[in-house]
Amino acid sequence: MYTLYSMQRSGNCYKARLALAQLGIAYDIVDLDLLKGETRTPEFLAMNPSGRVPVLEVAPGRYLSESNAILWYIAGGTPLAPEDRIDRTTALQWMFFEQNSLEPYLGAAFFWLTVVKGGRELQMHALEDWMEKGYQAFGVMEKHLATNDFFAAGHYTIADIALYGYTHLAHECDFELEAFPAIRAWLNRIVDQPGHVPMDWHPAAEAVE
Amino acid sequence: MYTLYSMQRSGNCYKARLALAQLGIAYDIVDLDLLKGETRTPEFLAMNPSGRVPVLEVAPGRYLSESNAILWYIAGGTPLAPEDRIDRTTALQWMFFEQNSLEPYLGAAFFWLTVVKGGRELQMHALEDWMEKGYQAFGVMEKHLATNDFFAAGHYTIADIALYGYTHLAHECDFELEAFPAIRAWLNRIVDQPGHVPMDWHPAAEAVE
Repeated sequence: MYTLYSMQRSGNCYKARLALAQLGIAYDIVDLDLLKGETRTPEFLAMNPSGRVPVLEVAPGRYLSESNAILWYIAGGTPLAPEDRIDRTTALQWMFFEQNSLEPYLGAAFFWLTVVKGGRELQMHALEDWMEKGYQAFGVMEKHLATNDFFAAGHYTIADIALYGYTHLAHECDFELEAFPAIRAWLNRIVDQPGHVPMDWHPAAEAVE
Repeated sequence: MYTLYSMQRSGNCYKARLALAQLGIAYDIVDLDLLKGETRTPEFLAMNPSGRVPVLEVAPGRYLSESNAILWYIAGGTPLAPEDRIDRTTALQWMFFEQNSLEPYLGAAFFWLTVVKGGRELQMHALEDWMEKGYQAFGVMEKHLATNDFFAAGHYTIADIALYGYTHLAHECDFELEAFPAIRAWLNRIVDQPGHVPMDWHPAAEAVE
């Protein structure tokens, strides 16, 4: 069985939890608290030298990192991971876009504004740049979604999951999606997908019920 | 025949040129100058709404963007693009790492210090952060390369090409690789790969010879 090393309030970790839930894959979860230094211990750095979650243990001692690579591993062989040459490239294109043009800004804003107490004051100098670049990324997404229901392959895929991870948190970290109707409609489409779970869903909660 | 929209002094564009050269794939090239606004014209934004190079036209009117997605398209079906489940995930892991943890800092430093005249003065406030995060990424790469010759699948793949794109330019933008012997040895291994071409190589030069 897989073990997911995860932080609950992380859009990157949520991507993996969402895909695992929708594919009905059972897994153990280890919750880590970045603010308590739990991703900086020698043990964790041995699993992932970059000190980031999520990490997926797929076999004893075999650890995979980077949320979007984990999505390809989890979803490989299912319709969520398109393998047609053009569809696969298009899914990858949007997933690299997410990690290069969206996550660095929206992820940072979410972390400092909602996870770290007093983070807004600490990062005041950077916030304007994050907002500007985040809105640039939303502009690119809006243009695509104006004429497409999903990001790749004409249906719901891990490219949507990757972009949903932080986009659905935009309103929690100062972003206003009023001017992006196609993104708002897409967010609703994602929630409507079979087996969707929200970010605060935790696999351990099921066991307790 | 493919058409590559490319800027010569871009590590991201070089990745595509290097893979195309090593795979012996013929293509047309259109050189664009970002500093002259050539990636911000309505025509170019219609090809890639994010306004970035490289863009690969793979069929009339069918444009692919994001350098690392383009690498998967170009190299698909060759040993450069591993398809074994774990090897593919490992290659993707390092390619997402590159776009999230290395390129934003090293790419920015290279652009502002070597491409834009007076860029150092303009970006003095950001440079320290780029250097710190760039060195963090080199630390992660060094750890991997201390016990591995390549980044994925035990041989040269597009993950190496992705990371080579900007890492080989480190010395041009203030980074010092003295403390990273495994990275330096890997840089030499990449240059030794069959069909390697340097960044200043241009396909049009072949036609002139």
